[in-house]
Amino acid sequence: MEREELFRKISIENERKMVLLVLDGLGGLPLKGRTELETARTPNLDLLAAESEIGLSHPISAGVTPGSGPAHLSLFGYDPLRYEIGRGILEALGVGIAVGPRSVAVRGNFATLENGLVSDRRAGRIPTEKNREIVAFLNERIRRIEDVEVALYPGEEHRFVLVLTGDGLDDAVSDADPEAVGRPLLYARAKGAGAEKTARVVNLFIDRLTAELAGQHPANTCLLRGFAKYPAIPSMKELFRLRAAAIAVYPMYRGLAQLVGMEILETGRSIQEQLAVLKKRWADFDFFFVHVKKTDSYGEDGDFDHKVAVIEEFDRWLPEVLELTPDVLVVTGDHSTPALLKGHSWHPNPLLLKSAFVRRPPEPGGAVDAIACGSPDGQACGKVSVKPLRAKFGETSCAGGVLGRMPAMDVLPLMMANALKFRKFGA
Amino acid sequence: MEREELFRKISIENERKMVLLVLDGLGGLPLKGRTELETARTPNLDLLAAESEIGLSHPISAGVTPGSGPAHLSLFGYDPLRYEIGRGILEALGVGIAVGPRSVAVRGNFATLENGLVSDRRAGRIPTEKNREIVAFLNERIRRIEDVEVALYPGEEHRFVLVLTGDGLDDAVSDADPEAVGRPLLYARAKGAGAEKTARVVNLFIDRLTAELAGQHPANTCLLRGFAKYPAIPSMKELFRLRAAAIAVYPMYRGLAQLVGMEILETGRSIQEQLAVLKKRWADFDFFFVHVKKTDSYGEDGDFDHKVAVIEEFDRWLPEVLELTPDVLVVTGDHSTPALLKGHSWHPNPLLLKSAFVRRPPEPGGAVDAIACGSPDGQACGKVSVKPLRAKFGETSCAGGVLGRMPAMDVLPLMMANALKFRKFGA
Repeated sequence: MEREELFRKISIENERKMVLLVLDGLGGLPLKGRTELETARTPNLDLLAAESEIGLSHPISAGVTPGSGPAHLSLFGYDPLRYEIGRGILEALGVGIAVGPRSVAVRGNFATLENGLVSDRRAGRIPTEKNREIVAFLNERIRRIEDVEVALYPGEEHRFVLVLTGDGLDDAVSDADPEAVGRPLLYARAKGAGAEKTARVVNLFIDRLTAELAGQHPANTCLLRGFAKYPAIPSMKELFRLRAAAIAVYPMYRGLAQLVGMEILETGRSIQEQLAVLKKRWADFDFFFVHVKKTDSYGEDGDFDHKVAVIEEFDRWLPEVLELTPDVLVVTGDHSTPALLKGHSWHPNPLLLKSAFVRRPPEPGGAVDAIACGSPDGQACGKVSVKPLRAKFGETSCAGGVLGRMPAMDVLPLMMANALKFRKFGA
Repeated sequence: MEREELFRKISIENERKMVLLVLDGLGGLPLKGRTELETARTPNLDLLAAESEIGLSHPISAGVTPGSGPAHLSLFGYDPLRYEIGRGILEALGVGIAVGPRSVAVRGNFATLENGLVSDRRAGRIPTEKNREIVAFLNERIRRIEDVEVALYPGEEHRFVLVLTGDGLDDAVSDADPEAVGRPLLYARAKGAGAEKTARVVNLFIDRLTAELAGQHPANTCLLRGFAKYPAIPSMKELFRLRAAAIAVYPMYRGLAQLVGMEILETGRSIQEQLAVLKKRWADFDFFFVHVKKTDSYGEDGDFDHKVAVIEEFDRWLPEVLELTPDVLVVTGDHSTPALLKGHSWHPNPLLLKSAFVRRPPEPGGAVDAIACGSPDGQACGKVSVKPLRAKFGETSCAGGVLGRMPAMDVLPLMMANALKFRKFGA
């Protein structure tokens, strides 16, 4: 029996509530012996960890550094190597565009063309307001290429999303982006016979757009990349019978949640505002995905101290979540973003799971052999067995946790089990 | 997406250097409470382990004892259940014979036939010099059977390799070896319709050889086993974009390395000489496989003390490797060979990985807070700061290491990650 078939078979509905708190890029690497999480003062997380099962989870497999797409799919219980999500789809979902099975979504940049060469790949980062104007203008002028409907959606600054909708479209199309300045426009190429129509329409679109924007310096052409169709992913409702909701600020994570059928809740941008939404909508769902972005952002910047600060801020707000007494609570990352590496990494995620049914050591931290000295001069030293005081929630303590080192795609099934939402398998 | 497809997609080249030090059969079982590795005095390995991620790796899967072929394939990053390597191929590669896709390679013994029965399966272990003479004689006399080319290559003592080359050859042929003395010759049988020609040619060969050697007592017949074609394995260059080299003394390990496309470097037989080659060729490759055989040999002999001594010898030479400051260094075994079992075993391998991006406890041997009690009744307890004893590199410490218990085939991907030779997967 295949994994998803198993879940469909054993999942049941009940009233128990689960919360998945994802601190994006939480995992780190040590600076002066301690990671970001180990450096942060997190009294609430530490207390929680002492009552939880802890461990490490790897998003994809050993050594593989994931992008946000596969990392989140894993945490939502899906095999990240089974479903590939194109960047265009992520962007489209993130700005709230409904993309259907007849559509291809593409990320676009407005760019600057001078004397037949791309001189600025971001059109001088035009203001978002200007972007909206241009998109409105283009949507008036370019409604259709051949029999394909064309729709543009403005993003921030120079970014937009293009959605093509029609019969026989395919996303096996190479990026139409020279990837450097000083080069001419690069047109899309079909990677297979099925994508020739799409490539042709895309290239006609580029020429039409460039003609329409002639003289509109600096935004007078476009670069297109990340062609993607909507992947056929079963929803969390189908797979796990969950009424699932997402409380995320950033478009991509809202998009990822929508991809697996979560309802996207409106929220302000701070952790406090996100948790207020959680409280307000507590009755309406049985699974909440809460996404905190800033840990990753500071990791990407190589800013160890600010990453520590975000973790500490999160820790201060954690009691708000605990007050709701979720039946199952997980705190983890989607992947590691060590400040040391200034980017995502392959290191597994610290993971904490709290429910009424956890195994935890009698006293957190077992005995270790140590040298203890009875006198300051070191004369009366001897080997003793001692129990360390309460462990911190961190990569090192998680490495010794009862959950061991598990695939991230097993986290959601484990939450289901702890919420008693999985039936026994087999007689 | 399948595992190898993923690696092909994300592997990139850079200048970082990786060393895989394999102590063959390193893992052991305790005698008086400590394994061979735990008994050995290994100050350099212990220091290194304190700066490394440690764990255990299982070559195939729980409970499965591997031969050298699958155990090494695993360490080279390949799924050992996907590729099967016949012993004949290993032997052929080991003595430097180029075996192509139209060939079948076979291990041979010269043996003694008396009154129609095999009286010595090794022809009294004839001197290697005599072996060479016989092989030269036979190569003159038997050049072809039907349309199949025949070539013999001498090994040590009574051993040789037979390579058959022609169209329509198949290795699904049973061993032509009675496996005990006092029995008549056993002829090869085809295990399937495609192997009938091969079995027929092999049996004609046995009769021709026996006729040619009539009167040449004790080497007057042969036993053949391990029929094998060259498996279609993608090279490490194809899969991981690595310029890989092997520094191994024994033929089989050189053969295994060649099978995955490593360049085989000439070396003397001692650890010292092997490391001199490593130093000399340091600039030419980005991956080095260094194989130390004797740990396994003494394990096979049930010689606990000599296995300990080899580990200690290796430890003394380890600083020569560290001086080269490899970006990623792994020390491990291919499988366990506990002296207690006098053979390979299923126990996972101690594993150590050092790079600039490892997670390790705050300060190895640093102070931790603990509760210590001054009296057995628990009355005089208090908080103290103690230094844990430095962990030894051994099976017990590895069982508690941050790497957990991982498949050996994940070791190379993890090395790739630590050398920053893997690109991020997905957006």
